[in-house]
Amino acid sequence: MRDVAIIGIGLSRWGEIWDASLRTLWTEAALAALDDAGLDHIDAITVGCMSPGLFIGQEHLGGLLADELGMAGVPATRVESACASGGVALRTAFAEVAAGLADVVLATGVEKMTDVSGDECTAALAAAADAEVEVFPGATFPALYAMMARAHMARHGTTREQLAAVAVKNHRHGSLNPHAQFRQQISVADVLASAKVAEPLNILDCSPITDGAAAVVLADLATAKRLAKGRPIVRIAGVGQASDRMALQSRRDMTTLPATTAAGERAFKMAGKAPVDIQLAEVHDCFTIAEIVVLEALGLCPAGQGGLQAESGRTALGGALPVNPSGGLKSKGHPVGATGVAQAVEIVTQLRGAAGPRQVPGARVGLTQNMGGTGASTVVHILEVAS
Amino acid sequence: MRDVAIIGIGLSRWGEIWDASLRTLWTEAALAALDDAGLDHIDAITVGCMSPGLFIGQEHLGGLLADELGMAGVPATRVESACASGGVALRTAFAEVAAGLADVVLATGVEKMTDVSGDECTAALAAAADAEVEVFPGATFPALYAMMARAHMARHGTTREQLAAVAVKNHRHGSLNPHAQFRQQISVADVLASAKVAEPLNILDCSPITDGAAAVVLADLATAKRLAKGRPIVRIAGVGQASDRMALQSRRDMTTLPATTAAGERAFKMAGKAPVDIQLAEVHDCFTIAEIVVLEALGLCPAGQGGLQAESGRTALGGALPVNPSGGLKSKGHPVGATGVAQAVEIVTQLRGAAGPRQVPGARVGLTQNMGGTGASTVVHILEVAS
Repeated sequence: MRDVAIIGIGLSRWGEIWDASLRTLWTEAALAALDDAGLDHIDAITVGCMSPGLFIGQEHLGGLLADELGMAGVPATRVESACASGGVALRTAFAEVAAGLADVVLATGVEKMTDVSGDECTAALAAAADAEVEVFPGATFPALYAMMARAHMARHGTTREQLAAVAVKNHRHGSLNPHAQFRQQISVADVLASAKVAEPLNILDCSPITDGAAAVVLADLATAKRLAKGRPIVRIAGVGQASDRMALQSRRDMTTLPATTAAGERAFKMAGKAPVDIQLAEVHDCFTIAEIVVLEALGLCPAGQGGLQAESGRTALGGALPVNPSGGLKSKGHPVGATGVAQAVEIVTQLRGAAGPRQVPGARVGLTQNMGGTGASTVVHILEVAS
Repeated sequence: MRDVAIIGIGLSRWGEIWDASLRTLWTEAALAALDDAGLDHIDAITVGCMSPGLFIGQEHLGGLLADELGMAGVPATRVESACASGGVALRTAFAEVAAGLADVVLATGVEKMTDVSGDECTAALAAAADAEVEVFPGATFPALYAMMARAHMARHGTTREQLAAVAVKNHRHGSLNPHAQFRQQISVADVLASAKVAEPLNILDCSPITDGAAAVVLADLATAKRLAKGRPIVRIAGVGQASDRMALQSRRDMTTLPATTAAGERAFKMAGKAPVDIQLAEVHDCFTIAEIVVLEALGLCPAGQGGLQAESGRTALGGALPVNPSGGLKSKGHPVGATGVAQAVEIVTQLRGAAGPRQVPGARVGLTQNMGGTGASTVVHILEVAS
């Protein structure tokens, strides 16, 4: 298996973007990543996107976007794993380069979510749950994550304020990120006073609906060294992907995420690392409870102590393990198919020492964790500065 | 890059299946392939499916189907490239094994198309075309392929009867295949007298709407040899994928398929083979004109002579180059996401010498070609009996 590095990164505008379509946003991100890499050609493209069919009536994004970029001809593959689509696009591109099927691959993610009504958007997102046993009886994602939060509070004593602390921290981080959709700082009191969505989750516990795209350029290590231009080379040291029982009701325990644990273990093993080696992480905080459970599942904190992490300041910038320095899904925004790739964009920015006011000093090893649904699919990547 | 072989194959029931859902059909095919391979575990799953969102309101098929199979835990990835989704699922699984990320991968395809009305089905399939410049002005796939047929007739003198000969041949082949959706033989006169869809294409020029699934088990060559049980080992000697301008109107020429040509060239190069080495092929005859243009694009006949191939008997069972011995999309059926995998199921069956009355005698090298939309994506695989 060949070593693989990330040699270019790019983001489109993120937010409610009314003057650009999916293909325009995607092309913004793709061109930014190619420009960052100093390349005008790639060998293949992967595109993570959850549901262009339900959001904009368009499938077949591989051919469409290769054409839009002026790269018609290259292999171009869309992958989908609900909100983990971007992470899967990154892993699929990794496999292309690792196998030697391509030397330089553009791994991307995109979602255009605001072209439909709020109800239609909720319905499209619900397609990430089990249509027969979850959606038909009326469950939506806020409701499913609310059940996970309730179970975690009952089992571990996690408090309403600890959930809020995750949102407060991530908004503070996002206030330092010019790409973030919501850059205002918020307080625990703000979260507690915000509108109820599905108890115990309020609106400020939930990531927003976002249009946006993200792209990274992957290359084999030899090519990466040739194109480094004096910048640190960021290697993909470990990749891990796993699945779980689809419906929340099928799981033995609603307070754990076995797919995240398994994906993490695979990535750690490939990288020859342990949780203690991770200096910063971008994880899937689609709801505040998610960040808490994910940190426990990855072994980044002891089981049951996820609620203490943000509250104690450990996972804030300046703490021992900054989590979601970008602002996370909560503040930066969550264009679902783009999120997994955008997490890698943030970690590479940090490992290059180019994150400005949100820089984690001396960062050399970072982790991304991206998941679909209530955790029925998860992808973990470990990135490090190549020595 | 590790050598990869196909060690198990399976199909679900194909047709208008009213008593089974997508997950049930998929599991039928998956279990058949695992049984054929003699395995009860795999390392990863890929799923090709074009639009479960628009057809059944369900995305996130990776986690859903891994769970359905009792394999929750393994990495499970859905890929989509419109009607080439199955071929892409096969190639993605190939990359997993070739890279060494997995030793045994279940590559699958599925589509459940008959749970929506005919109009909804047409709209879902149209999502494979460019929504902005093709679908909005009113184009559907029969119309787009009709334009390709008109252009081919004008350029090369291809006749209405030659188009019909493709359907006649493929129904004759399908009459020998117990898995085919339509097993009745038809005549040129039947095709000419059938209802007009989009001139010059009649209903008997069009592949049907089909529910179904297909699965193959891939393994590295060492594992394949260990599990061979005396059967011939079928190796994936070459893979090729390519894209093209998305909209038909953007192409320089409506009578050629550059992505098919490029994907074929990549597969031939990897396999160290030329078109003359191919003994049988399964190609994407979604409409009769498609088989004609594809044979030319792959170099399996001279440019402009595709129309003569079925008419002369060269591509019939018993001819020099049998094409679509399974019955093809036209007779066997076309559950769009499953088709690319089902093509591999047929070639493996033939290379094992297990195709019964439709066996191509002495077959040792076969090709599959699967494409999306009007050819904006194409995947080619070359399979051969390992010496």
